[in-house]
Amino acid sequence: MLRYLLAGLGDPPLHVALWNGERLSPQNGAVPAMQVHIREGRALWPLLFDPWLYFGDLYARGDVEVEGDLVEFLACVYRASAAARQRRGRASFFGWWLHRPRSTSLGRARDNIHAHYDLGNDFYRLWLDREMVYTCAYFPHPQAGLEEAQAAKMHHVCRKLRLRPGDSVVEAGCGWGSLALFMARHYGVRVRAYNISREQIAWARARARDEGLADRVEFVEDDYRNISGSYDAFVSVGMLEHVGIRYYPALGDVIDRVLRDNGRGLIHTIGRAKPGQMNAWIERRIFPGACPPSLDQMMGILEPHRFAVLDVENLRLHYARTIEHWLARFDAAAGEIRHMFDDNFVRSWRLYLCGSIAAFLTGELQLFQVAFNRAGDNEVPWTREHLYARIVPGEATMPEQQAARPAANSGD
Amino acid sequence: MLRYLLAGLGDPPLHVALWNGERLSPQNGAVPAMQVHIREGRALWPLLFDPWLYFGDLYARGDVEVEGDLVEFLACVYRASAAARQRRGRASFFGWWLHRPRSTSLGRARDNIHAHYDLGNDFYRLWLDREMVYTCAYFPHPQAGLEEAQAAKMHHVCRKLRLRPGDSVVEAGCGWGSLALFMARHYGVRVRAYNISREQIAWARARARDEGLADRVEFVEDDYRNISGSYDAFVSVGMLEHVGIRYYPALGDVIDRVLRDNGRGLIHTIGRAKPGQMNAWIERRIFPGACPPSLDQMMGILEPHRFAVLDVENLRLHYARTIEHWLARFDAAAGEIRHMFDDNFVRSWRLYLCGSIAAFLTGELQLFQVAFNRAGDNEVPWTREHLYARIVPGEATMPEQQAARPAANSGD
Repeated sequence: MLRYLLAGLGDPPLHVALWNGERLSPQNGAVPAMQVHIREGRALWPLLFDPWLYFGDLYARGDVEVEGDLVEFLACVYRASAAARQRRGRASFFGWWLHRPRSTSLGRARDNIHAHYDLGNDFYRLWLDREMVYTCAYFPHPQAGLEEAQAAKMHHVCRKLRLRPGDSVVEAGCGWGSLALFMARHYGVRVRAYNISREQIAWARARARDEGLADRVEFVEDDYRNISGSYDAFVSVGMLEHVGIRYYPALGDVIDRVLRDNGRGLIHTIGRAKPGQMNAWIERRIFPGACPPSLDQMMGILEPHRFAVLDVENLRLHYARTIEHWLARFDAAAGEIRHMFDDNFVRSWRLYLCGSIAAFLTGELQLFQVAFNRAGDNEVPWTREHLYARIVPGEATMPEQQAARPAANSGD
Repeated sequence: MLRYLLAGLGDPPLHVALWNGERLSPQNGAVPAMQVHIREGRALWPLLFDPWLYFGDLYARGDVEVEGDLVEFLACVYRASAAARQRRGRASFFGWWLHRPRSTSLGRARDNIHAHYDLGNDFYRLWLDREMVYTCAYFPHPQAGLEEAQAAKMHHVCRKLRLRPGDSVVEAGCGWGSLALFMARHYGVRVRAYNISREQIAWARARARDEGLADRVEFVEDDYRNISGSYDAFVSVGMLEHVGIRYYPALGDVIDRVLRDNGRGLIHTIGRAKPGQMNAWIERRIFPGACPPSLDQMMGILEPHRFAVLDVENLRLHYARTIEHWLARFDAAAGEIRHMFDDNFVRSWRLYLCGSIAAFLTGELQLFQVAFNRAGDNEVPWTREHLYARIVPGEATMPEQQAARPAANSGD
């Protein structure tokens, strides 16, 4: 039966050692560098029933151990099972039903978000960057530090949005408020930022007060579906994963309602090369309701309202690198985290971080930044070169971008 | 009835003058700068029955005249009718059926392509650039000349494909061979290029011989569905418009079959912000079978095979600028073209060129360049900055791009 399970996962090249000393090796003759150790007999049945869900639980408890590098082990399982899925074609209905994500309705979304983001700001401070940015960074070069890369990401987003002093911006899902404050601080815009995580909003409001930005950045504890007003820019970084595909039309309606005629939009999200489900354990134990979309699914937000995609950038390897930084800081703080929670929690979160690195390295997950505007709006920069101008500290907008604008319209 | 027709088009701000001296002005109080003159009573019925199809025919014959700038007139109709369509929501089944595009099956595609591209190379030479590139150019700055912008476009495509000397490239729909020859000449690659236009292939082969590139560039007179071999890069510039949505899965199968594991792909195509039909007159009289896709529809090529989108760039305003150049050259050669064909032809083609400029300026049409690779392939440049390095004549690949590659993989 274990052989059957491994075949279902595409026969990843690894040994499986059992609690009784037995060992299974791959049948296809591969020479594995890694070994999974099933330490307790009781672990076998849940593993056989639903390996994607229960491997994580058993690993967290220590009933299952991985000998060798955890990221490499998970990457090798992802690669083998992705290849097997491509060979098999359509997924089974049973598998789909078993792993269907939880509801992300207006009523349920708050619980989902609370479960993850309200674990305590003190916990996240231990391993995120100084600004508490909990999304993919942008490394101008692979050796950049995490703080530098998160600032570069926020500049990259602001440049794609072509922010100008005095613009009004709405942010859907603002985390601890880092991007909202950054936009106000560096680009001179007014921001209204929405989030349903109580702890994050409280933290963000305190930061706005401390920085003297409370008159320009308003943090609203409410759902994206309740956004009101009228704005020059709409931005959402790392929220779409939690929206759920069935609410994409509602999100599109919101954007259409609040974005002015010359408004610019940007959605930054974890995505997939092909529609599919989130890893079951992550969706159940770490991110309730999470569902990263394919580009095709994302178009369900934009196309009904005739928003035109201006730019899609895939930052998949930047997310792998970002999480490598988080993992190193997490490991350095593991003693403290164990003290705040317990060993099971530390093992769970290490598995989640390592699994995420593996997912981005193997292409199981992608990272899309999608910039858009209304289909006929000609106020667009002539090229994307302005995104790559050197960042001059204290300078708000890019001169290149300003220069290109009248020219882009001259043909109209 | 004419009022009803105008209302259906969203009441564009224009006067309609009739053959008997009567004049209709907009009911919404707009003050129009333009006037349509219906010179012959016989023009009225076809206009009322299907304005999108018959306006072009009547204009070509001179039964309908536009007083004022033709691009501006068409842009104002496009804008009004797009707004009306958004207000109305779903299009009528009758309208859809009336304007359904012709078949693009293996049997019919050759006729479709022959009707447009085999009008005679001597005709196209009169108004295209020196290299005979009949697709959207890339203007590094809006004042660039057409020859410069077409060369810049080809560099842009080659950089997105990260071509290296010795690579093998397959091109689907190669026009007069300009890109295939450019890639071999400037990037040292071997190219096999497919096209079903006999006149274009003959011209391209002659050019390859003249340039001494016949051993590195092979032109094949065949359909994209029959592409064989195995390649480092797949490129298609301006062919997808002719493929037809129902053959996208077949195109995806071809790409999956011929692209190596580390292969790079790029599709450059006219597109739409929202799925819809091509202008009926263009589809019937100018480009039989043409159907520009939305991004959502394009994903039907890539997602089933787990190709991951790396980069989407929208060059809509570059296409408006490109056609402005073509129009100026066309107008300068109008006497000669009238001599080759007739006045009806000249008026038809002016309408087609002006209508295309208007379509790109109003966002009725978009221009997408979509770069992709296999979902888990980590041989990608770290950023897109290398696309904006200065082009050094004679230098094949970009040093920035080479440097980024090992770093991108170091986390794997």
